[in-house]
Amino acid sequence: MANSASGESVIERVVKIMEAFSKGNPRLPLRELVRMTGMSSSTVHRLANDLAASGLLERDQSGDYGVGARMWELASRSNPLEDFRRRGLPFLEGVHAAVREHVSLSVPDVESGSVLYLERLDRHGTVMNLAEVAGRLEIHSTSSGMAMMAHMPGYVQERFLAGTLKKTTPATETDPARLRKQLAHIRELGYARMAGVLVAENTAYAVPVFGEGHSVIGAIAVVVPSAEENPGLILPVLVAAGRGLSRTMGAERRPYGTRPWLESPGK
Amino acid sequence: MANSASGESVIERVVKIMEAFSKGNPRLPLRELVRMTGMSSSTVHRLANDLAASGLLERDQSGDYGVGARMWELASRSNPLEDFRRRGLPFLEGVHAAVREHVSLSVPDVESGSVLYLERLDRHGTVMNLAEVAGRLEIHSTSSGMAMMAHMPGYVQERFLAGTLKKTTPATETDPARLRKQLAHIRELGYARMAGVLVAENTAYAVPVFGEGHSVIGAIAVVVPSAEENPGLILPVLVAAGRGLSRTMGAERRPYGTRPWLESPGK
Repeated sequence: MANSASGESVIERVVKIMEAFSKGNPRLPLRELVRMTGMSSSTVHRLANDLAASGLLERDQSGDYGVGARMWELASRSNPLEDFRRRGLPFLEGVHAAVREHVSLSVPDVESGSVLYLERLDRHGTVMNLAEVAGRLEIHSTSSGMAMMAHMPGYVQERFLAGTLKKTTPATETDPARLRKQLAHIRELGYARMAGVLVAENTAYAVPVFGEGHSVIGAIAVVVPSAEENPGLILPVLVAAGRGLSRTMGAERRPYGTRPWLESPGK
Repeated sequence: MANSASGESVIERVVKIMEAFSKGNPRLPLRELVRMTGMSSSTVHRLANDLAASGLLERDQSGDYGVGARMWELASRSNPLEDFRRRGLPFLEGVHAAVREHVSLSVPDVESGSVLYLERLDRHGTVMNLAEVAGRLEIHSTSSGMAMMAHMPGYVQERFLAGTLKKTTPATETDPARLRKQLAHIRELGYARMAGVLVAENTAYAVPVFGEGHSVIGAIAVVVPSAEENPGLILPVLVAAGRGLSRTMGAERRPYGTRPWLESPGK
């Protein structure tokens, strides 16, 4: 239906337009949309008009386009992620109240090798945290990603290790053999700790969240300035939240992290 | 582009499909999508396929469709509502910690005469609260809607009063003249209190949230079982949150509610 000369469906072209918007680019003029999507001006014009007529895009006074409230409404009211986010929020709040640092809830996207952040509570401070809500980061460069990957089946891990592994900071591990070792270690501990991997001066901790059938469905993470690291506080709180949310999400009661987790908090 | 015989654009047809999903119907088989959208089986089949290929819909093991994580991601990462939700969340948490009842954050949709709920914190109890996240309720049947409408320009109020006003419970006010009086009273008080209007045994309180130029951009509401109503606690907390969030959203400091608000808490 209405495939263009390039064989793209209308839906694919709509997604291209939607992808042009981001937190840094919430509003875009038509010419920017044309440039960023690489589609013809008339196609973008027509689609943007249709999208605005349905409320999926909105135009501001200057005529620039932005994602519309209707889009958020349609996406949120029946999304399974929304259920996980809502059930996770009280646990995030508990962790935040106890540690007063950045706290996040995420889900894995194994296909793309990334972590998708559903919710984030800010430390009201200055630490830089790259995990935006609805933002993505790579699995191997985040504590959340590694905490989740550590509990996935071997064939999923091997596919992940065979993929492209980019270096974000000098501390990012990209060697498959060493990452495989790290995953085994994280699985044994029951949590991931990564220092300076995404942002040089930060240390991140994450625990996995399990769902029905004890499959990994997400992670809760805390990011702290490495100078103020306090694992004796952070780990008990995180572990409790991870297990509590897992039970809420239907995971059976089952030990994970075969080593007593407080034994080696410093990695 | 690709308008059907009925003159609908592909986008309109996509929205129809998306609208079929809701919290009560998160997963739908193809035949249900056909029935609910009233479109031809081949059109729905083709569109659903394209939507699934782009991740906007997802298919589960049984072949049923649901809204995809990609849809939520595209909608959330650049949506202006997300900014309001995030800034509002700490205020909601504060209110929730103080009153331990249902707390919600909403925005007005004057066009459709409805209130769109962005966030909700549950009282861990049994009170029924119809305000779901990404759900809508009518302006005249909610304290949030009335608190927002009370501070809108006269011509917006008149258009709202001239619209269709449905009765949800016997206590729902639908008479334009009496609603006009209520709006004036709510504006004077600076908050709305509505007892048994949406759910017979509940009482709801709401305060408006203002943005730049002192225009109403949202509302914070608390719902309590009428039997446990405690306005002396709820009102100070709500008023503080409403004003705090207004300042955060760029509203100038300006009194609203010309009467001392604690004067007549019971209405």
